[in-house]
Amino acid sequence: MHEIAVKTDLLHDNDDAAHHNREHFVEHGVYVFNLMSAPGAGKTTLLERTVDALKERYRIAVIEGDLQTSQDADRIAKHGVKAVQINTGGACHLDARMVHKHLDAVDLADLDILVIENVGNLVCPAEFDLGEHDKIMVLSVTEGHDKPLKYPVMFHVAKAMLVNKIDLIPHTDFDLAKATHDARAYNLDLDVLPLSARTGEGMEAWYRWLEARVAKVRQR
Amino acid sequence: MHEIAVKTDLLHDNDDAAHHNREHFVEHGVYVFNLMSAPGAGKTTLLERTVDALKERYRIAVIEGDLQTSQDADRIAKHGVKAVQINTGGACHLDARMVHKHLDAVDLADLDILVIENVGNLVCPAEFDLGEHDKIMVLSVTEGHDKPLKYPVMFHVAKAMLVNKIDLIPHTDFDLAKATHDARAYNLDLDVLPLSARTGEGMEAWYRWLEARVAKVRQR
Repeated sequence: MHEIAVKTDLLHDNDDAAHHNREHFVEHGVYVFNLMSAPGAGKTTLLERTVDALKERYRIAVIEGDLQTSQDADRIAKHGVKAVQINTGGACHLDARMVHKHLDAVDLADLDILVIENVGNLVCPAEFDLGEHDKIMVLSVTEGHDKPLKYPVMFHVAKAMLVNKIDLIPHTDFDLAKATHDARAYNLDLDVLPLSARTGEGMEAWYRWLEARVAKVRQR
Repeated sequence: MHEIAVKTDLLHDNDDAAHHNREHFVEHGVYVFNLMSAPGAGKTTLLERTVDALKERYRIAVIEGDLQTSQDADRIAKHGVKAVQINTGGACHLDARMVHKHLDAVDLADLDILVIENVGNLVCPAEFDLGEHDKIMVLSVTEGHDKPLKYPVMFHVAKAMLVNKIDLIPHTDFDLAKATHDARAYNLDLDVLPLSARTGEGMEAWYRWLEARVAKVRQR
């Protein structure tokens, strides 16, 4: 019994903080997504293009999680939106408390969309609720179609899987149908969006997907 | 750093076991849902009617979680399907390991639907993944429409909210629109199904919802 009580308390700890964040997001009507992937899948490039395409229509800010540099926040800030860097000090994922400490810096009252770009890692980020509406994961075709079976928790918790770098499919043995099939084994409702942040292919569908999520938050 | 590492390990513990269960469910093509509610919301009565309505079409088994009695499993077994009781020994929720220990007893190879009825509790069960496809929660109108704001994690993780005992709405001040609105603040895609397991109102819609989920598992 003692062991179970301790485990529950530790889980409560992050969940309580996540809920507190969620209350802030709901209060301000801000749509929040937690963007996750392996290192090098192209999250930041995807965000740069997304910000450029949507910043006239929506007020956007980005919280960048990284072990120690502020390179990603610098890249995003050049596109004219607020970008705040969280250095996790070596931790392999963001947690809800880290995010909470930086919410003042992004000014929720003045936002439509808040993006939280997590640390590049297919394991731990999946297990920590940050209070976001959706977890969205990016799978690069160059990582291979075996990833859903190897990192099932990540594919289980995601609302959408963005399959990035599809311009490189002809140069790989990546099987999109298999990746989709295997990911949906763990997640019956997973939305799958093939795209290339580099060439722009599929990006319009991604913007429309985001618009629908923002509309759902506003409908309320 | 030490604290973070320990927390991650404890989270991994249940998640690993849940994934192991999920692999079994996927392998056998069994649709699995984890049914959760406060004590007395009517989960077992709902299951009795559901089993009666669907047992000719689907092979169904039920795992019942309870602190110490086997009353619920006895009730379900009378309806002609396999029912296995897990006594948590006082723990306020099921965890993935408890479920795993009882999977042999339900014989997944011979099933279409496995129901896991959790301990009556609106807090802890929400935080423990059992490997199920969907978490489904039952809110009784007699509990009041304030529950989504008071137990947000439960409403956040649910795929569907079954609003039970709607035949009693005229005798209460329950506001279905408010309960729905508040629950969707934490869960943009929550399906809401008002019903009465006692009078049968709304039960057909619930059966059709379940059929669609089973079909989605089989489509693969």
